[in-house]
Amino acid sequence: MDRLKILNLPAIRRFPTYLHILKRLDTSDMEYVSTAELIDRLDFEAVLIRKDLAGLGLKGVPRRGYPLKALINAIESYLGWNKDDEAFLIGSGALGHALLGYEQFSDRGLKIVAAFDSDESKCGSEISGKPVFSMTKLENLTARMGIRIALLCVPWHEAQQVADQLVEAGIKAIWNFTAQELDLPEGVICHNENLMSSLAVFSVKMKSHFND
Amino acid sequence: MDRLKILNLPAIRRFPTYLHILKRLDTSDMEYVSTAELIDRLDFEAVLIRKDLAGLGLKGVPRRGYPLKALINAIESYLGWNKDDEAFLIGSGALGHALLGYEQFSDRGLKIVAAFDSDESKCGSEISGKPVFSMTKLENLTARMGIRIALLCVPWHEAQQVADQLVEAGIKAIWNFTAQELDLPEGVICHNENLMSSLAVFSVKMKSHFND
Repeated sequence: MDRLKILNLPAIRRFPTYLHILKRLDTSDMEYVSTAELIDRLDFEAVLIRKDLAGLGLKGVPRRGYPLKALINAIESYLGWNKDDEAFLIGSGALGHALLGYEQFSDRGLKIVAAFDSDESKCGSEISGKPVFSMTKLENLTARMGIRIALLCVPWHEAQQVADQLVEAGIKAIWNFTAQELDLPEGVICHNENLMSSLAVFSVKMKSHFND
Repeated sequence: MDRLKILNLPAIRRFPTYLHILKRLDTSDMEYVSTAELIDRLDFEAVLIRKDLAGLGLKGVPRRGYPLKALINAIESYLGWNKDDEAFLIGSGALGHALLGYEQFSDRGLKIVAAFDSDESKCGSEISGKPVFSMTKLENLTARMGIRIALLCVPWHEAQQVADQLVEAGIKAIWNFTAQELDLPEGVICHNENLMSSLAVFSVKMKSHFND
């Protein structure tokens, strides 16, 4: 995928912020958005904005700026957020519970359609309108519903074993919210969401800032 | 802070994973841990491990490896996780609720001591053993308890206004879990936890991987 090589990871991480701003502007009658308006709302440098948007193949129109709807479409299409991918969530503890209620995901192409839990007492219930199934149904439902994506929210010491089950069931992409690094076969991608790594960065920033 | 310049951000993000592994080894009688054992458990390259740990000022002992307890202490001390910082959590919705139950924080120097919510019906209750207070008590309690850190978990459209209140109350470091970029005065640091940025990276990875 050439664009992934051309655009760097920081740019990809910035696109949701662009979208957030652009979609708020799109509720007005605005047809074009200028770089100055983007700078004002984003606090990014002009050169960075131009570079990010040029990476999408978009150029501003002199004295008008970027066509708003085309810009939104270009970002959504680049991220694949213009179409829905269905996903399962595994482990309906506190974090899983919160993520099931996160409506932002479905606006961004990721539709969590069901949760799974090894605790049979939770099965049969609903969380934020999504059914909770027993892990024993995972393989069957993954195949039947053609699901390729799973959000993994189990305790870390169960993570590898559950990941093995996911792979066995046919899952091809895992968003890993546990602290455990996963050992996965080729052909299965993993995206680690390690809150502790993020806390480490915050802690070092604070240590430097507070200087105590 | 010189070390922050010498060690790069990716190394800082890896340290919690080292700690996670090292603390599990520390429950046995092991005195030294070899690079080979770390590679086996971490799936990092030998050269990366040596570089990360050298950045902490640690060298391995030939044929024995790194002294386990000293290594744990060095990482914790580097991150500032060897002492507790108390923090408030603002906004006890689904995500706030999940974070209040996150015991990993307090093992890593971040002790959430109370939550605040603008919904008066929640105030007076407890979540995961932590009291929920009214936002009207924020300023008084921040000063009285000497709190400098806040986790911001309110809806994005309230984020800036609540951040202003936090700054007014004396908060000096904000871990921002909202999608809103915050405009903060100098002297207040912000660490953005933007799940949508992370989803963007996951989405682009998937688009490239699934190729559809």
